[in-house]
Amino acid sequence: MIVDEIADLRPGPGQVLAEPIACGICGSDLHTVDHAHDLVGAAKAAGIVSFTDGFDPDQDLVMGHELSVRIIGLGKGVQGIGEGDEFAAMPMLETPTGLAVPGYDNRFPGGYGEQMLLSPAALFAIPNGLDPALAALTEPMAVGLHAVNESSITAGRAALVVGAGPVGLAIVASLNAAGIEPIIAADFSPARRRVAEMLGAHEVVDPAAGSIFDAWRAATDGIEPPVVYEAVGVPGMIDSVMQDAPARTEIIVAGVCIPADRFRPSLGIYKHLSLKFVLGWTPDEFAASLHNLAEGQIQGSVLITGEVGIDGVPQAFADLGDPDAHVKILVRPNL
Amino acid sequence: MIVDEIADLRPGPGQVLAEPIACGICGSDLHTVDHAHDLVGAAKAAGIVSFTDGFDPDQDLVMGHELSVRIIGLGKGVQGIGEGDEFAAMPMLETPTGLAVPGYDNRFPGGYGEQMLLSPAALFAIPNGLDPALAALTEPMAVGLHAVNESSITAGRAALVVGAGPVGLAIVASLNAAGIEPIIAADFSPARRRVAEMLGAHEVVDPAAGSIFDAWRAATDGIEPPVVYEAVGVPGMIDSVMQDAPARTEIIVAGVCIPADRFRPSLGIYKHLSLKFVLGWTPDEFAASLHNLAEGQIQGSVLITGEVGIDGVPQAFADLGDPDAHVKILVRPNL
Repeated sequence: MIVDEIADLRPGPGQVLAEPIACGICGSDLHTVDHAHDLVGAAKAAGIVSFTDGFDPDQDLVMGHELSVRIIGLGKGVQGIGEGDEFAAMPMLETPTGLAVPGYDNRFPGGYGEQMLLSPAALFAIPNGLDPALAALTEPMAVGLHAVNESSITAGRAALVVGAGPVGLAIVASLNAAGIEPIIAADFSPARRRVAEMLGAHEVVDPAAGSIFDAWRAATDGIEPPVVYEAVGVPGMIDSVMQDAPARTEIIVAGVCIPADRFRPSLGIYKHLSLKFVLGWTPDEFAASLHNLAEGQIQGSVLITGEVGIDGVPQAFADLGDPDAHVKILVRPNL
Repeated sequence: MIVDEIADLRPGPGQVLAEPIACGICGSDLHTVDHAHDLVGAAKAAGIVSFTDGFDPDQDLVMGHELSVRIIGLGKGVQGIGEGDEFAAMPMLETPTGLAVPGYDNRFPGGYGEQMLLSPAALFAIPNGLDPALAALTEPMAVGLHAVNESSITAGRAALVVGAGPVGLAIVASLNAAGIEPIIAADFSPARRRVAEMLGAHEVVDPAAGSIFDAWRAATDGIEPPVVYEAVGVPGMIDSVMQDAPARTEIIVAGVCIPADRFRPSLGIYKHLSLKFVLGWTPDEFAASLHNLAEGQIQGSVLITGEVGIDGVPQAFADLGDPDAHVKILVRPNL
C-alpha cells in the first residue's frame, strides 16, 4: 500500500467528477490488501457477475467504496446536479462497456483518492443537515439493513448478532431502527460491546465469558427461535453457530468467509436450521440507511473512531487491526 | 442383522397392539446397519430431542418405521378402535416416561417384526379403498411433502430434485401433487429416472451426461431462480449444488449427510444462496400424504419394487444397494 500521484480524471458523457468528502475503511478493504487473489478467486469460482469483475489483483487499485462526495465536474449531458453539491454515493459508474464499481476496479479510483468518477444515479442528496462526513456511513449501514431485511425477523422475536465489527454493528443499528427487541450482541472486544450498546443492543455478551444463546434463554421464554446474524466471517463460525443454536434457528450469514470451511450438515438436519447468505444492499436500502442516519434513528457518530488524510491511510489500515482501538476510520482525502 | 424370536408384546394403558401389514425399508435403516453409532452421535451432537434418543446402538433393535398396521389388541382405556381395524401409522408411542419412536428404540420393536405397540393418536384410517400395503408409503411421502412445504416454491417456479432415491422421488411426487411445473430430477440410475417420470417429473437428467442446471436453463427463461431439493446426502453434494446453482437459488437440504462436510461459504455469499435443512414431517403432512396416495395424486405402486417376509429382510437390505434394481421394498411380516 503506497501513496502516489495518478493522472487527473475526466468525466465521460453522463458521468460526474467528484471529490470524496469522507470514505470509510471497510473490512473488505483490509482483507483485500493481503488476500486480493483469494477474494477475486472466490468471486470467479461463484461464476457470476461480481463487484470484483473489474479488479485484476496484479494491477494497481485505489480502494474506497463507503462514500460521501462533493461534485467538482460534470460530464456531457448531466443535468440537475451542480458543482459543489454534496451526496452520499453508491460506488457505481456506468461506462460504455458496462457497470463498474469504483474502489474495486483498476480503471476507476475509489474514495481513498482526491478524485473519482460516479454516475448521477449513484448519488443521494444528504437530508436534514446531516454532517456530510457521517453520510459516508450510509454504505456500511445499508449492508446491515440488507441483512435485517433478508431475514424474517419481526417484532417480538429475538435478534442475536454474533460479532460487533462494522457489519455486526450496522446490523445492530438497523435492528434497533426497526424496533426489534431484544437485540443481543456478542464480541470479544469491550470497546465494541460498548458501541453495540450505544447503537441499541439491549444486552451484550463476551464470548469468552458466556454464550449468546444462554443470554437469549435468560432474556426470553426460549420458545420462539431467534434469528442469528453471523457477522464474523472466519472459518468455523458457521459450524459453531449451528452447534449452539436452538432448533429452528434462522442463521443469516453476513460475515464474509472466503476460505473453504468445515461444517456438519447433520446439525442443520436434526435441528431444522436454515442458513441464508447475504451481501450488499439495494438502492432502496441505501436510501433508507441515509434516512436513518439523517433522522437520528442511527447515531452514526459513535462508530467513528478516527479520521486520516490520504497520507494516513496505511497507518489507519494497521491501526484497524486492534478491535479495541477502532471501529470505523474515515479517510478525508480533501480536508 | 439377524432374524430371531422375542417375547410377545402387551399394550399398556392407552396403547394398542398392532401387527404390521407392510413396512417400507428406509434409507436411514440401511445407514443404521453400518453406521448406527455415527447416526446417534450426530443426533447427540445436535443436543436436542431426537428420534434416536431411545436408541442405544450397542443393544438390539427391531427397525421399521414406514408403517401400515392392523390392530390385534387394545390397552386399557382405548376407545373408538377395534381389533382388525387397519391404519397408516406414524411411528409414535406415548409411554409413562415420554414419547418413543418404535423402530428407533431398543424397547419398542418397529415394523420389521410381527407385533408392535403404537398410540391411538398415531393411527390414520385408510381412505378410499387404498391397498393397505401401499398405505405404508405414507411416511416416506410425508418426508417429501415436508421438504416441499418448507420451501417457498409456488406455481410458475421451477423445482430441481437432485437425487431420485426414495426421498427425492417423494419430493417429485409431492411437487407434482401440488401442481408445480417444471419438475426436473437428476439421478445416475436410469431406473430411478424412469420412476421419477412416472411420478410427475417433466424432465430427467443423467448427471454423468449433463447438468440439471443446464436442463433448467433450457426449460425456462432462466430468470426466476429455481428451488433445488438436495436429496442425495453424501459429503460434497451441498458444495456442488452451491457451485452450480444460479444466484438467489433456494436450496432445501433433504438428504441426510451424517459426516462433517466441506463447503465454500463464499459461494453462498457471492450468489445470495440460502440453505434450509429439513427432516421428518408434521401429523398434518402425514395425513395429507395418505390422502394423496388414496386419491391417486401420487401413484404409490410405481415405487414398490419388491416384497419380502421377515426372513427376507437381510437380503432385501443387500439388494437395496443396487439403485437400478430397487426403489422401495416392503416388508410383509404377517403375510
